[in-house]
Amino acid sequence: MTAAPVSDTRFRLSAAVAQELATRFDTPLYVIDEAHLRARIREYIGAFRAVAPKCELSFASKANSTLAVLAIAYQEGCVIDAASEGELRAALAAGVPANRCHSHGNNKTEGELHYGIEHGVGQIIVDHFGEIEMLKDLTPSSGTNRSGEGETKFVLRLAPGVDPITHAKISTGQADTKFGFNIVDGSAERATKRCLELGLPLIGYHCHVGSQLLDPEAQRSGGELVARFAVEMMNRHGFAATYLNLGGGLGVRYTDADEPMPVSEYNRLVVESVRKVLEGSGLDPVLGQEPGRALVAESGVTLYRVGVVKTVPAKEIGTRTYVCVDGGLSDNPRPALYGSHYTVERVSGTLGSQVGSRVTVSGKHCESDKLFEDVELPGDVAAGDRLQVLCTGAYNSSMASNYNRYPRPATVLLRQNGEPALVQRRDTWNEMLAREVMPEGLA
Amino acid sequence: MTAAPVSDTRFRLSAAVAQELATRFDTPLYVIDEAHLRARIREYIGAFRAVAPKCELSFASKANSTLAVLAIAYQEGCVIDAASEGELRAALAAGVPANRCHSHGNNKTEGELHYGIEHGVGQIIVDHFGEIEMLKDLTPSSGTNRSGEGETKFVLRLAPGVDPITHAKISTGQADTKFGFNIVDGSAERATKRCLELGLPLIGYHCHVGSQLLDPEAQRSGGELVARFAVEMMNRHGFAATYLNLGGGLGVRYTDADEPMPVSEYNRLVVESVRKVLEGSGLDPVLGQEPGRALVAESGVTLYRVGVVKTVPAKEIGTRTYVCVDGGLSDNPRPALYGSHYTVERVSGTLGSQVGSRVTVSGKHCESDKLFEDVELPGDVAAGDRLQVLCTGAYNSSMASNYNRYPRPATVLLRQNGEPALVQRRDTWNEMLAREVMPEGLA
Repeated sequence: MTAAPVSDTRFRLSAAVAQELATRFDTPLYVIDEAHLRARIREYIGAFRAVAPKCELSFASKANSTLAVLAIAYQEGCVIDAASEGELRAALAAGVPANRCHSHGNNKTEGELHYGIEHGVGQIIVDHFGEIEMLKDLTPSSGTNRSGEGETKFVLRLAPGVDPITHAKISTGQADTKFGFNIVDGSAERATKRCLELGLPLIGYHCHVGSQLLDPEAQRSGGELVARFAVEMMNRHGFAATYLNLGGGLGVRYTDADEPMPVSEYNRLVVESVRKVLEGSGLDPVLGQEPGRALVAESGVTLYRVGVVKTVPAKEIGTRTYVCVDGGLSDNPRPALYGSHYTVERVSGTLGSQVGSRVTVSGKHCESDKLFEDVELPGDVAAGDRLQVLCTGAYNSSMASNYNRYPRPATVLLRQNGEPALVQRRDTWNEMLAREVMPEGLA
Repeated sequence: MTAAPVSDTRFRLSAAVAQELATRFDTPLYVIDEAHLRARIREYIGAFRAVAPKCELSFASKANSTLAVLAIAYQEGCVIDAASEGELRAALAAGVPANRCHSHGNNKTEGELHYGIEHGVGQIIVDHFGEIEMLKDLTPSSGTNRSGEGETKFVLRLAPGVDPITHAKISTGQADTKFGFNIVDGSAERATKRCLELGLPLIGYHCHVGSQLLDPEAQRSGGELVARFAVEMMNRHGFAATYLNLGGGLGVRYTDADEPMPVSEYNRLVVESVRKVLEGSGLDPVLGQEPGRALVAESGVTLYRVGVVKTVPAKEIGTRTYVCVDGGLSDNPRPALYGSHYTVERVSGTLGSQVGSRVTVSGKHCESDKLFEDVELPGDVAAGDRLQVLCTGAYNSSMASNYNRYPRPATVLLRQNGEPALVQRRDTWNEMLAREVMPEGLA
């Protein structure tokens, strides 16, 4: 195994702890390190505050909405960004006060909006004109100027028209997007006017240009455009935004090919651009950011057990070795969805002593799920070995399915004293059948 | 709306029934038509039997393991192919006798194998050498010749080395695959000899070259290679296979661009090739096939509700219209996973009277989930409309997740008398939080 580069900030388990956890909690198993997660959030908040004294960090809970993770993010000072009623319910169940939750979504139902307002969420990030009209009817004292503490504030999601350099499926900031009000076609201005006209508690704007961005240019430029738009709205309509959310998007190190910008540098670049635009405008909004992956991905690993190693004929390369693990598409759909690559390490057997070989780590689904293609593992990797996959704290447990009727893995939180605590248990066979109803005449 | 072509065999709901079901059971909603499903299975079995009097049809339950669907498949004469212990448990819970179940999987654990044997599954489809050794130890009377009825039989999964023309992720028959014993490198012969040596109850071979095949050539050629291999094994080792499974793979009509071969023609082509190889060999095995998608996909539709319609600036095409529905990646991951296309129809509003426009149907996830790109819908499609997506009976409910903490949809079975019966209920908020454990000191 080659030494990790100095800037590798990912959590990894020691072989001993990995073996202990695998034995005690079985595999596949998600593991989140509490100290690593807290440090990561503190680092981000610190870097943000250093360049924006009036700031607020949201944790995008879609990345990982395990209740324990939400509670930690809240304790460390984050607001919880909930992309659905379900995510909001999870945040509330984790003990996060509603006014520390933000409600997102490109297609919220009236029921979802009602649920959020009734519980007093801090913000609703409004996505389209129909939603403004729904909110008008849901806001009891609409038409009056309301600014009391504890009241739900509205923020308009904007599409700044930036084309981020990232995977097409997770790009959301260009003009051609289902999300938000476009600046370029005048929708954003019309939405602002409509909110003002209705006297809705509008406080500012939000944008989010993309995810897993290794080059911050899109983010920087998106923030700049939104800030410029805010200044225009003040000049044209006298609306003084008190809140601007620049979204999330900072990439993480899935493999050594990913070299995300350090958090401090990223914050300096993105936030300074915005502050420059705002300078002298008279606007001094609270700045928000909303990372998910950047806060939690590197704090998590997944443990698997190798069931079989098989070397087969392969075109061009001669042979290919498949290392089949006891998970797959159902616990990590990202390789199949996005072609994502991960770092895989053996955490059992004789460590460090073998010449590595390039293998394909496959799952156990009835698909050619080449879970992790072309990764290096010791040449003697064998059935019974345990592997850890780094950087799986985000978009793994939250995207897991019961495909092929496999139970979704448990999540263990490695507490700060080193003790493991089960925070999300594995599905049981019984609950996996609980939704089934056999109608009369069929059984 | 243009008229459906004559060969369009997909089930679709009338606008009236669609509206009634959406109102009664809410959306998103999976609907399976019982009469359509039964007719489809009967047609397949009929076509199979017409060319292979000694035949057995398996239903690949990974396509849809709703208990009601499994019960129907069994009642119509299918064996249930279970790709995991969970799928086997579902089949047993649906009332399918264990000896009518086959156990598949490229990486079965000893526990899974033990569960199958203990319950008396009809067949275990053996995937690799390690599994043979595990089975040797699990089979109580190993070493003796066993041929009693009711005993679990073993079938070797073979990789015939055929490169099917289909999506790379669901191709499983080429030599470069995690599945089965390769014919070309001698593994298949060694596996046969090992089973004979151990006196294991080996009865034959299995292959599966790919899924959603619109050209049956790969399937035909895969079956031929496996049959040839079986003849060789008889000639060289005196092993007379009494069972040959040719796998599944016949494509379905997701859109009119997909023109699957009629079931009768497909069966004639694939089965006749095999019979020709077997002619005069002295082998007269039961022939098996194992379709999943081909039996259930076209019997199902998904109902959605439109929440917002948004037209935005788009490069090259000028503008794009997003029709956002109340589902997405979590209830149908196939577009994101495989770039799959579907047929979408409006089932409310004024039908048939508008000029169609090309739109992108998007989901409600925090991703640019372009669920169904470039589909034709009436120009006045609007919030509140209901849409039905055809051909979603396979790999939708079985692959669904709780991503963004959305409840997985319910499935309604439209009984033969036209009455709807709930067969898989929507997740409840409570059960979506049931796996969470808040450790001490966090809440």
